[in-house]
Amino acid sequence: MKIKALLTSAGINIGLCVLFLSLYSVLRKQPANVRVYFGRRIAEEHNRVRGAFILERFVPSTGWIVKALQCTEEEMLAAAGLDAVAFNRMLVFSMRIFSLAALLCVFGILPLNYFGQNIHHLRIPSEQLDIFTIGNVGVKSRWLWVHCVVIYIISGVACILLYIEYKHIARLRLLHLRRPTPNPGQFTVLVRGIPKTSKESCSNDVDDFFTKYHAPSYLFHQVVYKSGKVQKIMTGAKKAYRKFKDFKDTTVDQSCGAISYRCCLCGASSNSFQLLPTEFGQSTEKADLNDSSLNKDDEECAAAFVFFKTRYGALVAAEVLQTSNPTKWVTDLAPEPDDVYWSNIWLPYKQLWIRRIATLLGSIVFMFVFLLPVTFIQGLSQLEKLQQKLPFLKGILKTKYMNELVTGYLPSVILQIFLYTVAPIMILFSTLEGPTSHSERKRSACCKVMYFLIWNVFFVNVLSGTVINQLEFFSSPKDIPIQLARAVPGQATFLITYVLTSGWASLSSELMQLFGLIWNFIRKYILRMKEDTEFVPSFPYHTEVPKVMLFGLLGFTCSILAPLILPFLLVYFFLGYVVYRNQLLNVYRTRYDTGGLYWPIAHNTVIFSLVLTQIICLGVFGLKESPVAAGFTIPLIILTLLFNQYCRKRLLPLFKTFPAQDLIDMDREDERSGRMEHIHHRLHSAYCQFPDTEDIQLEKITTVGNDEDRGCGSAESAGKETGEEQQPRRDLSHPTLKGLPISRLQTAVRSITFLIRLQKRGLS
Amino acid sequence: MKIKALLTSAGINIGLCVLFLSLYSVLRKQPANVRVYFGRRIAEEHNRVRGAFILERFVPSTGWIVKALQCTEEEMLAAAGLDAVAFNRMLVFSMRIFSLAALLCVFGILPLNYFGQNIHHLRIPSEQLDIFTIGNVGVKSRWLWVHCVVIYIISGVACILLYIEYKHIARLRLLHLRRPTPNPGQFTVLVRGIPKTSKESCSNDVDDFFTKYHAPSYLFHQVVYKSGKVQKIMTGAKKAYRKFKDFKDTTVDQSCGAISYRCCLCGASSNSFQLLPTEFGQSTEKADLNDSSLNKDDEECAAAFVFFKTRYGALVAAEVLQTSNPTKWVTDLAPEPDDVYWSNIWLPYKQLWIRRIATLLGSIVFMFVFLLPVTFIQGLSQLEKLQQKLPFLKGILKTKYMNELVTGYLPSVILQIFLYTVAPIMILFSTLEGPTSHSERKRSACCKVMYFLIWNVFFVNVLSGTVINQLEFFSSPKDIPIQLARAVPGQATFLITYVLTSGWASLSSELMQLFGLIWNFIRKYILRMKEDTEFVPSFPYHTEVPKVMLFGLLGFTCSILAPLILPFLLVYFFLGYVVYRNQLLNVYRTRYDTGGLYWPIAHNTVIFSLVLTQIICLGVFGLKESPVAAGFTIPLIILTLLFNQYCRKRLLPLFKTFPAQDLIDMDREDERSGRMEHIHHRLHSAYCQFPDTEDIQLEKITTVGNDEDRGCGSAESAGKETGEEQQPRRDLSHPTLKGLPISRLQTAVRSITFLIRLQKRGLS
Repeated sequence: MKIKALLTSAGINIGLCVLFLSLYSVLRKQPANVRVYFGRRIAEEHNRVRGAFILERFVPSTGWIVKALQCTEEEMLAAAGLDAVAFNRMLVFSMRIFSLAALLCVFGILPLNYFGQNIHHLRIPSEQLDIFTIGNVGVKSRWLWVHCVVIYIISGVACILLYIEYKHIARLRLLHLRRPTPNPGQFTVLVRGIPKTSKESCSNDVDDFFTKYHAPSYLFHQVVYKSGKVQKIMTGAKKAYRKFKDFKDTTVDQSCGAISYRCCLCGASSNSFQLLPTEFGQSTEKADLNDSSLNKDDEECAAAFVFFKTRYGALVAAEVLQTSNPTKWVTDLAPEPDDVYWSNIWLPYKQLWIRRIATLLGSIVFMFVFLLPVTFIQGLSQLEKLQQKLPFLKGILKTKYMNELVTGYLPSVILQIFLYTVAPIMILFSTLEGPTSHSERKRSACCKVMYFLIWNVFFVNVLSGTVINQLEFFSSPKDIPIQLARAVPGQATFLITYVLTSGWASLSSELMQLFGLIWNFIRKYILRMKEDTEFVPSFPYHTEVPKVMLFGLLGFTCSILAPLILPFLLVYFFLGYVVYRNQLLNVYRTRYDTGGLYWPIAHNTVIFSLVLTQIICLGVFGLKESPVAAGFTIPLIILTLLFNQYCRKRLLPLFKTFPAQDLIDMDREDERSGRMEHIHHRLHSAYCQFPDTEDIQLEKITTVGNDEDRGCGSAESAGKETGEEQQPRRDLSHPTLKGLPISRLQTAVRSITFLIRLQKRGLS
Repeated sequence: MKIKALLTSAGINIGLCVLFLSLYSVLRKQPANVRVYFGRRIAEEHNRVRGAFILERFVPSTGWIVKALQCTEEEMLAAAGLDAVAFNRMLVFSMRIFSLAALLCVFGILPLNYFGQNIHHLRIPSEQLDIFTIGNVGVKSRWLWVHCVVIYIISGVACILLYIEYKHIARLRLLHLRRPTPNPGQFTVLVRGIPKTSKESCSNDVDDFFTKYHAPSYLFHQVVYKSGKVQKIMTGAKKAYRKFKDFKDTTVDQSCGAISYRCCLCGASSNSFQLLPTEFGQSTEKADLNDSSLNKDDEECAAAFVFFKTRYGALVAAEVLQTSNPTKWVTDLAPEPDDVYWSNIWLPYKQLWIRRIATLLGSIVFMFVFLLPVTFIQGLSQLEKLQQKLPFLKGILKTKYMNELVTGYLPSVILQIFLYTVAPIMILFSTLEGPTSHSERKRSACCKVMYFLIWNVFFVNVLSGTVINQLEFFSSPKDIPIQLARAVPGQATFLITYVLTSGWASLSSELMQLFGLIWNFIRKYILRMKEDTEFVPSFPYHTEVPKVMLFGLLGFTCSILAPLILPFLLVYFFLGYVVYRNQLLNVYRTRYDTGGLYWPIAHNTVIFSLVLTQIICLGVFGLKESPVAAGFTIPLIILTLLFNQYCRKRLLPLFKTFPAQDLIDMDREDERSGRMEHIHHRLHSAYCQFPDTEDIQLEKITTVGNDEDRGCGSAESAGKETGEEQQPRRDLSHPTLKGLPISRLQTAVRSITFLIRLQKRGLS
C-alpha cells in the first residue's frame, strides 16, 4: 500500500468524522432526540425539555466539545461514577504516553527508518508504506541504539504514568468507599451454599448460624428464593392456593401468630417487625398471607443476604472461612442493591466452579471459530491471492480507485461488522458463569472481549500474513519474537487502516447513537409508543474498555516498528476523550459501579502490551543482528515485569478488599453522629428480590427526589398478583393495580386450577 | 541392557539392603549408638539407657520392623506430629496405588508388550529390557485398548485414593488445630511493615494502632528487634556503655521510673509487668538496665507479635487488610514459638517480594547449571559414546562384568552423590527468601527440591538420550507428547536402576544414619566431648517428600510403558514405609510442624504425574496410530484436571486458613472452663527473641516435665553478657555464669573501648 492510498483512506474517514460530528451537533439540539442524546440528564437531573423552534438548532456548533472538556473529575464522579473516571483515566493515560511516543518516533525513528537503506527515494506520496517501517533499516545498522533508547524511554514513562494513575484510582476508590450516602452493600454479606437441614427451615438455619458465630455484629437476614420461570408460576399458584384455603377455613388469630414469620416475599426477617413497630399494621397484613405449613416448601433457599451492624463486621464475616467445609456457608460482600443480578444469585454454589470452567472453554472455542471470517478478511488485503481465487473480480479490481478502496478500507469494515456479534456472545457467556452482580458480569465480559480482540484482531491478523497456520504459531515459543518481528512491520498497513476505520468510525457511531436514533424514530413516529423515561442504557464498558486497550496495544507494538500509525492513533485518543466524556455525561446512566475495578484490567493489558512490544523489539534487534540492542532489551523486560509485580503487591489488594482502618473509622463516624440507626432502618428495605418493576417506576415518578421511603413494595404486589379474584376490594384500592398485566392473572388462575385438581386427586 | 544385567544390579542392591538392615538391627542395640538411633525417645520420653552386656545385642533381629508396623496413627501423631502422618499417608497412598498398578500392569500389560511383535524370543534372562516396554507393541495393534483401559483404571483409582487421603489429612488438620494443649501461635499475629513515625516509639505505635482498631480482642504486644551480627555487638556495646555511664552518674530512683519502659531484650510490653505483679521483683532488675534516652535508638523495629484475647480475634486481625497501604501493617498468623525463624523475622516486609523473585531466579539458574554433571552421567550409560571419547577406558570396559556394573550401577551412584548437594543449596535459597518460620522454610525448600528432582532426574535424563539439546524440548510444546512417548520407554533401563540404587540405597543409608553414626563415634572416642542430649535432628521433609514423590512420578509414567519397574518400586515403597515409620518414631524429633501442609504439595505432584502419564500415553497411542485409544485419553486428562480443580475448591482452603466456626467453638470452650486466663498468662512468656540457649537447656534439664515456668530467661542473660566487669557481684550469683564463653566478654570490652574513644572525640 502506498502513502497515497493511505491518504485516500484517511481522507474518507476524516470526511466521515467531520460529517458525523456536525450531524451530531445538529441532531442533539432537536427536541425529538433529547431522549437519545441526554438520557442520563433527563433521568437523573430532570431537566425540562425546551421545544421552541429557533434557527440556531440547525447550525453545527462545537459547544458540546467545550462542555465535555470543561467538566472536572469531581463532576464526572458525581454524574457517572468511579468506573467512568477510571475509563477517562485510561484515555488520559493513552493520550499522554502516545503524545510522547509520537514525538519521539515521528521525529526520531521515522527519519531513521526512511533513510535506513541507501535506496532511491520516490516522491513521498508514491512511496510504499513499508519504507517507513523498521524493515527498511539495514542489518547491523549503527542507528539501532536509537530504537533501543526510545523503547526504554517509552516503557519507563509508561510505567511511571501507570503507577500514578493506579495510585490515583486507588485513592478515588477509597473516597468512593467513604462517600457520604451510606451503601447497604457495605453492611451486607451474601451467603451461599447454605446446608440443608431437614428439621428446620433455611431461614432459621441462617439465623442460628449467624447468631451463634457472629453475634456481636449480626443484625438480621433475608433469604433469597429461587426464581426460575417455573418457580415463579408455582410460587404464585401456591400463594393463591393458600389464600383459597384461607377462605375455606376460619382464620381467627392468624394475624397474631404470624408476626413471628418472615415476610415471605421480600424475605425480611422477623426482626424487621420488631425493630419497626410503625410497620406493624402493614406486617400483619403481609403475615396473614403466610402459612406455617406451606412456608416450609418455600424454604429451598440457596442464598441469603445477612445484614450486620457495622461495615467492619460485614467485612470480617465476608473474609473469614466460615466452616470446615469451604463450599458451605460461603460468604462474600454483597453487591449494592441496584447491582444485584437476581436471576443468578440463587444458583447452587457448588455449580459455579464447573460453570466457570465450561464458559472458559466455550469462550476459547468461540475465539477459534471466529478465525474463519478473519482469515477471509485478511485475504482481501492481499489482492493478488484473492484475484487468483475469484477470477471474476479481476475486472472490478482493475480500476485504481476500487483497488485502493478494497485494500485500504473494506477489510476493516467487514471485520468490524463481525466484531459486533462478539460483545453479546461474551455477555451471554459471562451470564452463564453465574456472577451475582451486573457489574461483575460486565467486568467478566470485558475481560473476555479483551482476550478476544487481542487474539483475533492483533495476533491472527498480524500472523496470518506470515505464518500459514495460526495454531502453529504457539507450537514454537522460542521463535515467537522472530515471527512477530517479521510479521508486525509487514502488517502496518492493515493496522493503520484498522485504526482509521474501526477507531474513528466507531467513535462517530458511538457519538451518533445510530441505533438509538433510529429506534427512537420508529417508536415515536411509526409505533407511536409512549416515551419510556426510565430506559436509559448504561455505558458498555465491556466493549469500550477493550477497544481502547486494543488501540493502546497497537500503538505500543507499532511505535518503534511502524511509527506512521501514531498520529492516527493520537487523533483517535483525543477524539475519544471528547466523545466518551460527552457520552458519559449526557447519554448513559450509571445504575451500578464496580468501584474502579476496570483499572487493574487496563493496567494488566498495558503491561502485556509493553512486554509484547519489548519481545517484538528483541526479535527485531535479533533479525538486524544487533546484539547490543537485543542485550539491552532483556533487562527492560525483566524491569517491566518487576514493576508489575510491585504494583500487584502495593496496589492490587486495595481492589480486592477494603481496608479495615477506613471501614472502622466510617463506622465510628456514623455511630458518633447518630446516623447508624437510620442506616440500619434503611437496610430492611434495601434488597428486594421480587420488585414489581412497574410499581417501583410509578412510585419513583411520584416520589421523585424523595426516594428514601421507597420501601420494598413487594408485599403489596403479592396481594395484587394472586389475591385478585378472592379479595378484589382490598387490592383495587392499591394505586398501581391499573398497570397490572393480564397475563399474570391468567397464569395465576391456571396454576390454581392445576393445584386444586392435584389436591382433589390426593384426597380421593 | 539385558535382564541379566538388571538382575545383577538388583542382586547387588538386595544384598546391600539385607546387609544394612541386619547391621542396623545390631547397631541399634549398642548402648553407644543409642543417641543416634533413639534421639527422639531420649530427648522426649527420657528413657533410661541400659548398658548391660548381653549376647543378644550382636544377633540381627526383626523386632524393630514389627514395632514400626504396629504403631497406630494416633501414636504417630502424638510422637511425630501431623507432618509425619501426612508423610506416612503419602507412602500408604503410593503402596496402594502401585500395588494395583503392579497387578494390572505385570499381569495385563507386560505379556502384551512381550508378545507384541512376532519376533523370535530368546531365553528371558538374555532378553533385552526393551522387549518388555510398549516399544515392542506393533503399530496399529488391536491390543492398545487394554493399555487405555488400564490407564483409566489407574487414574480413576488414584483420584479416589487421593481424595480420601486429602479429606483424611484435612480432618486431622482440624483435629490438630483443636488439640488440647493451647498453642500460643493461634492467639498471636505477626505484624510487619510497621510504619516509622518520628514522634513516638515503635512500641507505642503498635499499641495505639491495635487499641484503636482491634480494641475488643487486643491483649498486648511484643516488639521484635533486628538481630544481625553487627547489631548484636552494637547492642551489647551500648548496653555496656550504659552501665558504664550508670556507674559514673548517680542513679537514685531509676528502679521506680523504669517500670513503665519495656523490657528491652525479650520485648514484652509494659502491660506484661502490670498484668504479672509477681514478676515485679524481676522486672525492676531488668528495667534498670534500660535507659529512656538510649531506648529510642533500639526502636528500629520492623516487626511485632501482637497477642489477642481469642483465637478468632487473632484470625480476623490476620486476614483483614489493615490500612489503605497493603505494605504497611501487614498481619499474618504467627508461627508457633518453637517454629519462629528469628533471624528472618525482622526483615523489612518491602524486601520480601524482591527476595522471593531473586531466589526463584537463583533456583532456576541452579537447575540448569546442574545439567552439566547429569549430562556426563547420561554419557556413562551409553558406553559406546564414552569409549569413543575416552579411548583408554576400552581395556577396562571390555570385561563383561565391569561393563554391566558401569551401565547398570555407576550412573545412578554418581547422580546420587551430586544430588546430595541439592538439599543444602535449596535450604539456603529458601532462607534467603525470608520465611518467618522454620517450617515455612522447609516447605519452601521441599517445593524447590521437588521441581529440581522432577526436572533433573526425570526430564533431563529421559530426554537427553533422544533430544540433543534439552532446551529445545520446550521450544516445541506441540511435540512434547510424541517426544516423551519416544523417550520414556527407551530410558526404562536407567529409571529401573535409579529406583534400585537411589531408592533402595537411600533407604538403607537413612536407616543406618551413617553420618550420625560416624559423628557420634568421633565425638565420643576421638574428641571425647560430652554427650549433647538436646541436639536431635528434625526429619528432613524437604529431601524425603520430593524423593517419594519422584518415585511416584517414575511409577506412574512407566506403569504402562515399561511395567517392569513396578515390582522394584513396590519393594521401595514397602521398605520405605517400615524404615520411615521407624525413623520418625525413634530418631527424629519434631520441634515444629506445618500442620499437614506437605499434603497439598504431594497432591499437586501426583496430579502432575497423572497428567504427564496421560500425555505420554496420548503420544504413544499417537505413535502407534491408534486414534481410538488416543481419543479416549483426552477426556481422561480433562477429567483429571477437573478433579484437581474440585479438590482446590473443596479442600485446599482448609490448608490456607482456619475455619472461624472451630476457632470460635474452642474460644468458648476455653472461656467456659476458665482456662482462658491461664492461656493469656502463658502468652507473656511464649515468644522470646534472645533466649540464651545454654540457659534454657540447663533450665530445661532441671525443670524437666514442668516446663510451664520456663520464662523468657533473657533478662538474666543480658546482665550476664555485658555487666560482667562492672557488677561482678550480682552476676556471679547467677548459676549459669560458669558456661559463659570468653569471646563474648572480649567483644564487649572491645566495643566499650571503641565507644569511649568515640565519645572522647565527640567531646573534644
